[in-house]
Amino acid sequence: MPTISEKGKKMPASPIRKLVPYAEAAKKRGTHVIHLNIGQPDIKTPKVALDAIRNNTIEVLAYSMTEGSEEYRKKIANYYKKNDISVSHEEIIVTTGGSEALSFAMGTIMDPDDEIIIPEPFYANYNGFATASGVNVVPIVSTLENNFSLPPIAEFEKRITSKTKAILICNPGNPTGYLYTEEEIKQLAELVKKHNLFLVADEVYREFTYDGTEHYSILQLPDLEEHAIVVDSVSKRYSMCGARIGCLVSKNKTVMDTALKFAQARLSPPTFAQIASEAALDTPQEYFYDVIEEYVERRNILISELQKIDGVKVAVPKGAFYCVVELPVADADDFAQWILESFEMDGETVMVAPAAGFYATEGLGKNQIRIAYVLEKEQLIKAVHILSEALNTFPNK
Amino acid sequence: MPTISEKGKKMPASPIRKLVPYAEAAKKRGTHVIHLNIGQPDIKTPKVALDAIRNNTIEVLAYSMTEGSEEYRKKIANYYKKNDISVSHEEIIVTTGGSEALSFAMGTIMDPDDEIIIPEPFYANYNGFATASGVNVVPIVSTLENNFSLPPIAEFEKRITSKTKAILICNPGNPTGYLYTEEEIKQLAELVKKHNLFLVADEVYREFTYDGTEHYSILQLPDLEEHAIVVDSVSKRYSMCGARIGCLVSKNKTVMDTALKFAQARLSPPTFAQIASEAALDTPQEYFYDVIEEYVERRNILISELQKIDGVKVAVPKGAFYCVVELPVADADDFAQWILESFEMDGETVMVAPAAGFYATEGLGKNQIRIAYVLEKEQLIKAVHILSEALNTFPNK
Ligand SMILES: Cc1ncc(COP(=O)(O)O)c(C=O)c1O
Ligand SMILES: Cc1ncc(COP(=O)(O)O)c(C=O)c1O
Repeated sequence: MPTISEKGKKMPASPIRKLVPYAEAAKKRGTHVIHLNIGQPDIKTPKVALDAIRNNTIEVLAYSMTEGSEEYRKKIANYYKKNDISVSHEEIIVTTGGSEALSFAMGTIMDPDDEIIIPEPFYANYNGFATASGVNVVPIVSTLENNFSLPPIAEFEKRITSKTKAILICNPGNPTGYLYTEEEIKQLAELVKKHNLFLVADEVYREFTYDGTEHYSILQLPDLEEHAIVVDSVSKRYSMCGARIGCLVSKNKTVMDTALKFAQARLSPPTFAQIASEAALDTPQEYFYDVIEEYVERRNILISELQKIDGVKVAVPKGAFYCVVELPVADADDFAQWILESFEMDGETVMVAPAAGFYATEGLGKNQIRIAYVLEKEQLIKAVHILSEALNTFPNK
Repeated sequence: MPTISEKGKKMPASPIRKLVPYAEAAKKRGTHVIHLNIGQPDIKTPKVALDAIRNNTIEVLAYSMTEGSEEYRKKIANYYKKNDISVSHEEIIVTTGGSEALSFAMGTIMDPDDEIIIPEPFYANYNGFATASGVNVVPIVSTLENNFSLPPIAEFEKRITSKTKAILICNPGNPTGYLYTEEEIKQLAELVKKHNLFLVADEVYREFTYDGTEHYSILQLPDLEEHAIVVDSVSKRYSMCGARIGCLVSKNKTVMDTALKFAQARLSPPTFAQIASEAALDTPQEYFYDVIEEYVERRNILISELQKIDGVKVAVPKGAFYCVVELPVADADDFAQWILESFEMDGETVMVAPAAGFYATEGLGKNQIRIAYVLEKEQLIKAVHILSEALNTFPNK
């Protein structure tokens, strides 16, 4: 039998994959499972976007332009303008989700064995894209005690080698919920200029900032143009994860010309989803006010409920809709499995994402989980009660 | 300024990219350009597929399952059954176009510097996916004189090294239009079993076979199960290229488990497009009879018109909707540019794809072009007249 690739063997499985069979078994037993484990919002997709699809009059569903339709890119440029970011439509390539933008970015700037520095914990699939590209992730730990703020620049400098090509940040962060300050972004900008690196910012949660904070994009820095590459997506912004539309944005022309070659190989991003995404840009501003209000309420409830539990620590997220929670257990993987396998309260249990999968450093995050607050408040309250009770009875503390 | 990757520098641009500005300029001058250069059919997408989209009642456009919705995969399995291919839905991963299936296949079975043998001329983007994966393409030339049939097995054996992991075929072929016989497929099967390689077959044009010929899939061979990987797509089958739905099919469980990890990193294939693709499976059989009749008529007209031109050679395609045409010119790249730049007939000219981009061997295909017969007969006739006149006046023969 022929053998698969070494790369394929190394590819990380999704951090919750091991738990899925336990969740399935719980459902088969009749136990209702509350999903705190995935970033799939329950928020309705804007009607303008869905209507554009329902009213389409396409007769031949053709390939779009490789870089996305020109009209759509022009409208995206206009959206950025409203967000104090000045880019032209030629500095945008529409991609199949932020996911594809991430893999184009890696392919464009990194060769096998090159290094990319990423503060951890980070979005777990960065590991997948890095492994697929043969790239090595060099993590720098950020801590719950410091709210997962930017690690000291000295820590970055220590890790820069001749193989380092880029620093990747997620802002606001999944799984941390941390929103980098303008000051932190400027520190990173100085660093990448000094060492001639790229700065890749995953800004897919840009809209989701709370408590009067404002998102500061790496594209707002005038002299970072040759270094800055932004990954963006409509998935969370308009609760349209299933569209599979994102984009790659950079003012570095060589980067864009190169990324376009990767894009050409796969022909085009999905046509229907581009229609929906273009229409979504007309979503009234109130939609976001409502959504953000909703997330803030959910966050507040979630955090205050969690803080009531003995031995639980949590950093208050300022953005996105995740938080990392430290539990009074030795192994959150074990706990997450046990709670699906052997625990229930009034016929219900919860599924959480063990946080170890969000770290690249072996052994970190073992007593942490990630919670996505993409469910209604009552569900969140109930879920935290279940967690609390489960922690009381969990045998392997 | 930070530099892009070596891989990015090596990425091939689309073979027609150089010509696009000339086509744009021609259009600006008011010249109508007939596009023979792309495989974007003008055939209408089946109404069942488009209606499914227009009638959808989705409120939250959510991620689908990573491997594609179970219902859809079950329906695909059923489609294969009707095509004498027995696979279960667990042996199918729904991808974002056949394109993504190709890149998952490469990632799953090949590491950087590994080799994949491909008869040339071949679908140009195989070069792109190979470069993106750091994989080396080892070409074996097939010739117009032999209708682009399978090169002798001895030629394959000569090229097999310890780095060879797979043989990739496209059946029926883009750009050749050649349909491999059952006998040829069986020869390849023996070869990959003998040398313990994978056999990857791109069967996206499966339906398009002419003159009473029948497609023979590598999945029909019972003892090839561990070796066979099929790349498929709805793009051409239902003239829905813009959907971006395809699939990867294999009975090799390790291959599927590994490919799934690549799929998990990018979360899911597009949801709307899956709905349309699932509905498309209910397309009445008459649709295909009509489409195939149309393509056969187009092919017959195209070939007979081409054969009237002095010095032009063309192999009669038995499948897909492309043909490779040898022209009485030294450099088809030059000719293709000149005809856009300096030639017109009654306000019209044509755009063709120079065939050199479909070869991996430097210098091959220099006097060939690829024509896609995805336009109406009148257009094809006119286009060939323009080509014929242009050949008469072209100065650099
Ligand atoms: C931080 C981050 N980046 C990128 C993505 C990719 O999302 P998509 O491909 O749906 O745009 C996600 C999805 O959860 C994410 O959380
Ligand atoms: C031979 C072949 N394989 C694969 C593809 C990829 O098509 P898609 O990604 O639209 O399924 C094409 C498109 O032209 C093709 O011709």
